[in-house]
Parts: sequence; structure tokens; C-alpha cells
Amino acid sequence: MKIAILGGTGDIGEGLALRLAADTPHRVAVGSREAEKAENKAEEYTTELESRGLDATVAGGENAAVAADARIVVLAVPPYHVGDTVEAVAESLEDGDVLVSPATGMKRDDEGFHYHKPGAGSVTEIVADAAPEGVAVVGAFHNLAAARLANLDADLGVDTLVIGDDADAKRTVADVAEGIEGLRALDAGGIANAPEIEGLTPLLINVASNNDDLHNLGVRFQ
Amino acid sequence: MKIAILGGTGDIGEGLALRLAADTPHRVAVGSREAEKAENKAEEYTTELESRGLDATVAGGENAAVAADARIVVLAVPPYHVGDTVEAVAESLEDGDVLVSPATGMKRDDEGFHYHKPGAGSVTEIVADAAPEGVAVVGAFHNLAAARLANLDADLGVDTLVIGDDADAKRTVADVAEGIEGLRALDAGGIANAPEIEGLTPLLINVASNNDDLHNLGVRFQ
Repeated sequence: MKIAILGGTGDIGEGLALRLAADTPHRVAVGSREAEKAENKAEEYTTELESRGLDATVAGGENAAVAADARIVVLAVPPYHVGDTVEAVAESLEDGDVLVSPATGMKRDDEGFHYHKPGAGSVTEIVADAAPEGVAVVGAFHNLAAARLANLDADLGVDTLVIGDDADAKRTVADVAEGIEGLRALDAGGIANAPEIEGLTPLLINVASNNDDLHNLGVRFQ
Repeated sequence: MKIAILGGTGDIGEGLALRLAADTPHRVAVGSREAEKAENKAEEYTTELESRGLDATVAGGENAAVAADARIVVLAVPPYHVGDTVEAVAESLEDGDVLVSPATGMKRDDEGFHYHKPGAGSVTEIVADAAPEGVAVVGAFHNLAAARLANLDADLGVDTLVIGDDADAKRTVADVAEGIEGLRALDAGGIANAPEIEGLTPLLINVASNNDDLHNLGVRFQ
């Protein structure tokens, strides 16, 4: 299966691309609005994988180009670009493709980070509103620290929560997520449950910033 | 140190009373609007502790009475009773006492539970607004499953997040929390960071209700 990571040149995109390429049999491509930027990053990721003796490559290209033959398209872009990005790749998506939303809206004050709930209800809901008919939307990979994900020496041992209104698509994404070593995918219900998941990301940052010995936190439900 | 648990006849109050009495050297009293109800529950808790061979008792009485000589007063009441309860015990509180807020507002739809953010910003903020001068407010114990807490055979192995704008009060509550076996207290900053913590409680319920093998969930930051 081919997985396209749009915004795959950013922090969380890098981590997902490296882990998916390193740990799963899926073909991984990173996308950007600029093809060259994505190609350069893809080369960088492939070099990183090869340096570890892994027989894995990451492809790169313009967002719509990498989305074109992908079954799963991850929107690893800032929340305010999510709508635009879906629009930009809409014609590349086919019936049965799955859009994955890992983004969350945050704002910061003196005390820390806070969930900035979009008017639509959640970032995942923005994606659902923008998705072409026949393309399912699943929320996943929200609460993962980008730096830890991108460091292939770091153990994960954390959970990712998967939400969606299409059970098959949710199962597909959960299976992909569990292909990443040390990542457990848990079902958190439908897209209506997205705000509490997206709101967990700023909380993880606040906990890390208030405890000297905790960095790049993830969460384990137990 | 004496700890009063107002609403200590409810689920989360029961769990906190039993664990604090069983695991810490503090004197624990549960309060209710009706003295007799609290006295009966306290007797029940003490019997439970004795049946386990523990040399620990729980006292009981009317909310204002048990708050009177307590250093720490836990508001284990529903969010819509938090303001009233602080008002009802305000004259029993002294400079240096600490009010602890574990409550969260939730509403339910077809998909699951959702954080019902109060107009004040958070339940903890409601408590802070209602607290008499000189009495510090700390948020803690939000994300603990009541049934697991009340079952002294159950291992915890989870975290509780502690927030507050008074560093000493926060430290005091964190120390009390860590007296409970298997509970780790993590600093999550100031009261402004409460909404994301209170919003984690409905998420824990949603995760448990969507995964057959997970019940009475807590969370571990790692």
C-alpha cells in the first residue's frame, strides 16, 4: 500500500515518514507544495534509512503528485493549511482512499499551550467537511512527539488514538499505525470525539515543560 | 495533616478516601451535605480498611464540619455543585488551607463523552474564583477511574496531573498524591492549563468504551 505524507518535510511528517518506511512494508512518499523541497527531504530520509542498513526508501514530490496513487494520505500540515491542502489534492483522491488527520490547533499563553478548538469542532472535522465524497477521514497520530518519532534510536512505547466514522478506514489506519514498532493504536470512536484527542497534544507539551526529567512525551492508556 | 473529602460519599470521593487512608499517614474525613450519610459511609470505609488488616479509619460529618480542621479540602462533588460547596464551607477555611479540585464537566452524545468547558474556563477556575482569600486552589486527581481507585486490590501505575498558581500548595498536594501507592504526580503548570486536563477525563471514558480489553483507564505520560 502507498502512503503519502503531505507536509512531509515538517517535523511530524519527517517522523512518520521515517518510522513507516523503517518499520512497515508500505511505500512512503512525502509531499510538499514545492516538489523540489519534498524531493530533497525524501533523499535525506532515504540516506538516514540507508545509514542504518535499512532497505527502505522514501519518495518525494508535489502534494497532489504524491497523493495521486496513494491509498492513505496523511495531512501532516499546520491546522490552518488543512482545508487548502485537501482542496489542492482533491482531484488526486479516489473512492476508497483515506485521508488521515494528525493536526491540532494550539495557542500559547504565559502558562503554556492550549487547545484552540476550530469553529468546525476539531481539525479532524475540518478535514471531514473538506473531503471529497467517497474518501473516508480518520484522525490518528495526534499525540506523538515529533522529535522522538524522528529519532529512530528512541523507543516509543506509547499509544495513538484512532477516530473515524468509517470502520474499515479506521481499521486500515490502525493497522498501519501498529506497524510502527512500539506504537499501539486504540480506537477512540467517531470523529465527534476528536476535540479531546487534539486537546491532549498541548497538555503533553505542558507536562513536559513543567517536569525536568520528561521530554518528548507520549501517552499510554492503562 | 488532615484531609477532608467533600462529596466523599460519591464514587471518586470513596476511592480517594480509601487510598489516602490506606496508603498515607494523613487523617482522612469524608463530608456530605447530610452528616449522617457521611458518617455511615465513613463507617463503611473504615470496615473495608479493617477487613484488610489496615490500621486506618475514615471519619465522617457534614461538609463544613469536616472542612473546619482540615489543611486540605478536596471538592469531590459534581462540577455544578463546586461553587455552592466552596461557599458552604468558606467560613471553615483558614489562611494556608488548600482547596483541591478533581472535578470535570462532561456531556454525552451518540459518539461518547465530551468536555463541557464551563464559562469560567475550567472547573478548577470556578473553584479559584470562589475560594476565600488566603486559600490556595490546586487541581488534581482528575483523570483517575473511580472504580479502580476504590478497589484496593487494583494496581494503579498511573499519573495524576497537578496544577495551581501557588507553588507551595501544589507541592503539598503532589506529595499527598504520591503517598498513594502506584500514583505519580506530575506538575502541569498553572490553573490556566486546567481545561486540557479536565478534558482528558471524557477521553479516557471514550477509549475504554471503544476497546473491549480496556476498563477503568488511567494514563501514564512517558
